[in-house]
Amino acid sequence: ISCLGLNVWMFLKKAWDIGANDPRKVIHCFKVGLALTLVSLFYFMRPLYDGVGGNAMWALMTVVLVFEPNVGATLYKCLNRMFATFLAGFLALGVHWIASRSGDRFEPFVVGASVFLLASMATFTRFIPSIKSLFDYGAMVFILTFSFVAVSGYRVDKLFDFAHQRISTIFIGTSLCILVIILVCPIWCGQELHGLTVRNMDKLADSLDGCVTKYFTNTNGEDDKKTQGYKCVLSSKASEDSMANFARWEPSHGRFNFRHPWKQYLKIGASMRSCAYCIEALNSCINKENKAAESIKKHLSTSCLKVRSSTSSVIREVAETVKKMNKSRTVILLVGEMNGAVEELRNDLKSLPQLLDLSTSAENKEHETPFMEIIPVVTLASILIEIAARTEAIVSSV
Amino acid sequence: ISCLGLNVWMFLKKAWDIGANDPRKVIHCFKVGLALTLVSLFYFMRPLYDGVGGNAMWALMTVVLVFEPNVGATLYKCLNRMFATFLAGFLALGVHWIASRSGDRFEPFVVGASVFLLASMATFTRFIPSIKSLFDYGAMVFILTFSFVAVSGYRVDKLFDFAHQRISTIFIGTSLCILVIILVCPIWCGQELHGLTVRNMDKLADSLDGCVTKYFTNTNGEDDKKTQGYKCVLSSKASEDSMANFARWEPSHGRFNFRHPWKQYLKIGASMRSCAYCIEALNSCINKENKAAESIKKHLSTSCLKVRSSTSSVIREVAETVKKMNKSRTVILLVGEMNGAVEELRNDLKSLPQLLDLSTSAENKEHETPFMEIIPVVTLASILIEIAARTEAIVSSV
Repeated sequence: ISCLGLNVWMFLKKAWDIGANDPRKVIHCFKVGLALTLVSLFYFMRPLYDGVGGNAMWALMTVVLVFEPNVGATLYKCLNRMFATFLAGFLALGVHWIASRSGDRFEPFVVGASVFLLASMATFTRFIPSIKSLFDYGAMVFILTFSFVAVSGYRVDKLFDFAHQRISTIFIGTSLCILVIILVCPIWCGQELHGLTVRNMDKLADSLDGCVTKYFTNTNGEDDKKTQGYKCVLSSKASEDSMANFARWEPSHGRFNFRHPWKQYLKIGASMRSCAYCIEALNSCINKENKAAESIKKHLSTSCLKVRSSTSSVIREVAETVKKMNKSRTVILLVGEMNGAVEELRNDLKSLPQLLDLSTSAENKEHETPFMEIIPVVTLASILIEIAARTEAIVSSV
Repeated sequence: ISCLGLNVWMFLKKAWDIGANDPRKVIHCFKVGLALTLVSLFYFMRPLYDGVGGNAMWALMTVVLVFEPNVGATLYKCLNRMFATFLAGFLALGVHWIASRSGDRFEPFVVGASVFLLASMATFTRFIPSIKSLFDYGAMVFILTFSFVAVSGYRVDKLFDFAHQRISTIFIGTSLCILVIILVCPIWCGQELHGLTVRNMDKLADSLDGCVTKYFTNTNGEDDKKTQGYKCVLSSKASEDSMANFARWEPSHGRFNFRHPWKQYLKIGASMRSCAYCIEALNSCINKENKAAESIKKHLSTSCLKVRSSTSSVIREVAETVKKMNKSRTVILLVGEMNGAVEELRNDLKSLPQLLDLSTSAENKEHETPFMEIIPVVTLASILIEIAARTEAIVSSV
């Protein structure tokens, strides 16, 4: 029993941590509670209840199904739900009219066939990427409303009223959701995406800094968390995609207009990821067992560290530019500086053989650095050069 | 108008292609249609309609909301829906009982407060990762059913019958879904995940082959598609995660048992991705502008190509092992071969300086290969060695 108690305690502690780390999640939970309680008023207050003809359940259901943590996703679902309900409602009324003309015997067959056909077709549209990204939820609501109204037509007498009530209650539910989500501590998807991009850039710069410094100064530990930051960049593709998708639905807010170029963020994300792949390769070459010769390391460390710091300051400056959303002239200067550092590193690499020759001729054979010990450093240097090139790609994608 | 016609035509053609490429999607659409038509029988046949007391709409709705393209996702939603409906139904009846004891004036407040609290709490559980992966949909249905039954209690007289009907119709809907999804051309999530893993391994081997061969033989074009295969591996994390999540819910099918170690696939996927990062770095080093010296290339090409072919044959053999799900002895042999090839490449690298020395002393200065031209080949070689090491990680994760 004490084991169970401990488990429960751990679970509660974890839950508390989640809430404490991101209070907005807790606020979101209260927002759901608030919206549901508001919509319950349609049951509790007689005039409201009579107004919707006892169909208040649709409004309740809409709130549960449509309410998402951020504004973009909620708007996407609300608009999809309204549009699809309208369309399906009218289509179903049309089908019912045709079916009722075809006589009592054939009515179920006409309705059944139309449900089968339209449901299959609407399901198929969910597989088409361009429709899926905009109307996935709408297609589902379309199937639901259509089959619902069309089939009910067989049992319900006043079908028009039935459809009308479903549409109006869903309208009430969605508007209530939109009001609550926008008025009470809104979480804008676009802002989140913007913040994520800036944060990821900073992480990229940090881990580039961390990796190279760790290699050349042989300091271990402490900053390991910072060094691993690039992994966030690698794994954030899915969330970027969905956020960019939802951000399209958001109205102007803060410094973002309605037609803000959200797709640009995906491009920036892709170029950041291609940079992160290189950092991953860099990391692998740092953690390798075969250590490099100290003399070579020393020879290249100045220029490598310079490339590192200029590259990461380019990334940081770009992050700053994205954050403030203005063109910055410093970026061009910094890119120039970075290219200068890369050129210097290239020159240092070119002069390596002289260093080797020197050591082989002047000193005794014991002190010779074997060629194998150069390789890791050289690999690292050329990956660094590649990273600098990819950083330029990030700059141009901004 | 002709432009619009062209657009529509293009759209239809694209839709047709999607269907032709994967007929199972079309079959899924017809399955949805079939399930909906079957559940419509509850409206069309008088005894069935009377049996569920006119609440057939819940069964209809369940089918639309629960039906997913693969068995795992459908089972997940079905079981979640049933379980959550039961739990929420009983809780709501309890709350209603308490509320009705507290007098007419306080009843709405008790009900409203309980809805607010429980909805907030259930929403919060959706943020806890361990619950989200198993019961995300269930939490939503819980909120829906609870608020629904509890609030309706204020207007509906026979609340017990109401809850009972909701539960039984949802039970009918889910069982119908499960029957249709399993009996009519089932698409098993586990099988998909298994196939995806094997396919990704083959793609990895292909692109490794393609990249290195292209570099050393200077052939361009044609096989570009094969060479880019590793990008599929990079981007398949999200789908692997969700498939492994749904596969847990599937019963034994084909060669997969109920408790098949699906998480193992995620580990294999992760090690494949870490290998793909290296191939990405390799690719970047191939596409670089500064070309390497032909003599060095020739010197290393034999051993590089050997590492390449032995590594990719290890990957292919592992893919075969995973496909047939048996331990293979050849893998160990092939890994040994690969390590031998890596050792050979190391030796070739070690002998590089001699080659350089030879060229500087014996021939004239014009023919000297500048150090800068060695770097790309050396980088490539050391990345290849890293790829071989990561391939061993894949082998050990299988």
